[in-house]
Amino acid sequence: MNILITGGAGFVGQRLAMECLQRGNLQLDGKPSPPITKILLADNAEPPFWHDGLREHPLVTSSFGDISDEAYVKSLFAEEIHAVFHLASIVSGHGETDFDLAMRVNLDGTRYLFEATRAQQNNARVVFTSSVAAFGGDAMPDTVSDYSKQTPMTTYGMTKVIGELLVNDYSRKGFFDGRSARLPTVIVRPGKPNLAASSFVSGLFREPLNGEPCVIPVDPSQLMPVLGYRSIINGIIKLAELPAADLGTDRGVGLPAFNATVQELMDALKNVAGNRHLGEHILKKDDTIAKICAGWPQQADTARGIELGLPIEDSIEDIVANYIEDYLEGAST
Amino acid sequence: MNILITGGAGFVGQRLAMECLQRGNLQLDGKPSPPITKILLADNAEPPFWHDGLREHPLVTSSFGDISDEAYVKSLFAEEIHAVFHLASIVSGHGETDFDLAMRVNLDGTRYLFEATRAQQNNARVVFTSSVAAFGGDAMPDTVSDYSKQTPMTTYGMTKVIGELLVNDYSRKGFFDGRSARLPTVIVRPGKPNLAASSFVSGLFREPLNGEPCVIPVDPSQLMPVLGYRSIINGIIKLAELPAADLGTDRGVGLPAFNATVQELMDALKNVAGNRHLGEHILKKDDTIAKICAGWPQQADTARGIELGLPIEDSIEDIVANYIEDYLEGAST
Repeated sequence: MNILITGGAGFVGQRLAMECLQRGNLQLDGKPSPPITKILLADNAEPPFWHDGLREHPLVTSSFGDISDEAYVKSLFAEEIHAVFHLASIVSGHGETDFDLAMRVNLDGTRYLFEATRAQQNNARVVFTSSVAAFGGDAMPDTVSDYSKQTPMTTYGMTKVIGELLVNDYSRKGFFDGRSARLPTVIVRPGKPNLAASSFVSGLFREPLNGEPCVIPVDPSQLMPVLGYRSIINGIIKLAELPAADLGTDRGVGLPAFNATVQELMDALKNVAGNRHLGEHILKKDDTIAKICAGWPQQADTARGIELGLPIEDSIEDIVANYIEDYLEGAST
Repeated sequence: MNILITGGAGFVGQRLAMECLQRGNLQLDGKPSPPITKILLADNAEPPFWHDGLREHPLVTSSFGDISDEAYVKSLFAEEIHAVFHLASIVSGHGETDFDLAMRVNLDGTRYLFEATRAQQNNARVVFTSSVAAFGGDAMPDTVSDYSKQTPMTTYGMTKVIGELLVNDYSRKGFFDGRSARLPTVIVRPGKPNLAASSFVSGLFREPLNGEPCVIPVDPSQLMPVLGYRSIINGIIKLAELPAADLGTDRGVGLPAFNATVQELMDALKNVAGNRHLGEHILKKDDTIAKICAGWPQQADTARGIELGLPIEDSIEDIVANYIEDYLEGAST
């Protein structure tokens, strides 16, 4: 089977590709798929870093172009694609400063991708990555779930809800077999900060472990749902593999998450760090970022995702330990 | 002030224009607007009928074109527009048979309209007409409200939810001052049946009052939220007039509605008909229509709309009596 990953040169995209390569195939509807013969990583630009060996892997092809260019999107389907993981997106903070870019990439780009997938008429498996930023607003419940109304307070979140709606309708019409994975904040992202308003949530682990300070732009009492990248990747794959009948008419599923305060995240780092010298956390509120984060759900009830068998680590400390193993002890970079 | 009504040659569009003309201005945020100087009725084609005098009214201009043609939409803004009522839409049944047309008209067309409105930079007042078809799916509650998750089961409903999301985000960004009116089934539409799956709900009054039979394609026990066209029109105008602060971050408001069975609707007709000879109701299930209707909300809790002061008739009988007065006793056609 051939797999397309948009945003494939990003951190999550690369790790998803690595996991697919390691597995060799997917267990679609509980049955092993044909072996993976190609993984096409599409992204807008060369990434800051490639995980070791991924780009040179004989089954991996990388392609760089603009997903809001319909012709480029069509070119990704020169060979038949059997599974699409749609990760490409303008992120939250960036979308707030450039509405038109967010609409073009996140909405037009998604529609081009979905139309190209539909045009194959092969009922391809599709996973769209949504976000807890799909929730928001003055009537948002304290704890959101798969059954909460989605009234986002960022353009990013708005385009994510639209993506979920499109996945449901394209699937209902039989154009493809889609699912939406609603991601909490992913920790710990390696590399550099990005334009996501939640970027500091990885930074608060990453920078101190590198001996560097990290500015915390929100109140330490700020609650947010988080999940480790290993469970993010395994959850996305599991969601792709589940029989459609398990999902019902609403194919949007919140991945399991820890509802943690920023203070608890900082504490978890100290609990795991051992003798490592840690850079310090500098509390310095940034009103723009604090406002965006405060507008997101504080807590997620992810019982549906857990019932569906989507994974979650045992503790936040485990997530940090995985990051140290994968990125600081040289196992995967 | 200049008003643009898309779908303006339709029944609701024409009645909305007539009501605006009669009022002379709007009470925006409780204060009288400048007098209405122009009403531009945009639609895709000449309507089956014009209400008497409307087309010839000196303040009314009609324009015919394709709302999914960006240049046409821009042409509607040759003169500054101060209020937009966006009624144009591919209807539910039609959208199920032509997905691409529904996407083009309901999604692309809406985006062109919203962009043209935004380009004026005058914070125009916008009312988008959504629908109870915005709700659906296997997790839909028995009674939906403004706080229920919107997981529609028609492409029509899907595009309506997207419209509501766009209204919220364009308003949040200050691109215009928008609101969404979520319409229940409108009764009693005059004229001919249309391609809406709910078309028979007006037919069951209209055809018998014309001495003609009407086929009822669903079970008489089918529940559905309905509202008379006078309250639909007055509710849309009231929603345009309310201060934005009354609406909060979610500008989508369900118009008040009666939750009635089809049997109760048929009974109301008989209660009002007096000595009129009525054509008969022929129960003959149409599986396609019955399935669409069964997928819609059975009951709507419209407490928020009522608190906001949106109107509702005293009874379904009153709605039928209004229709007889307006259309059968020659008052307005």
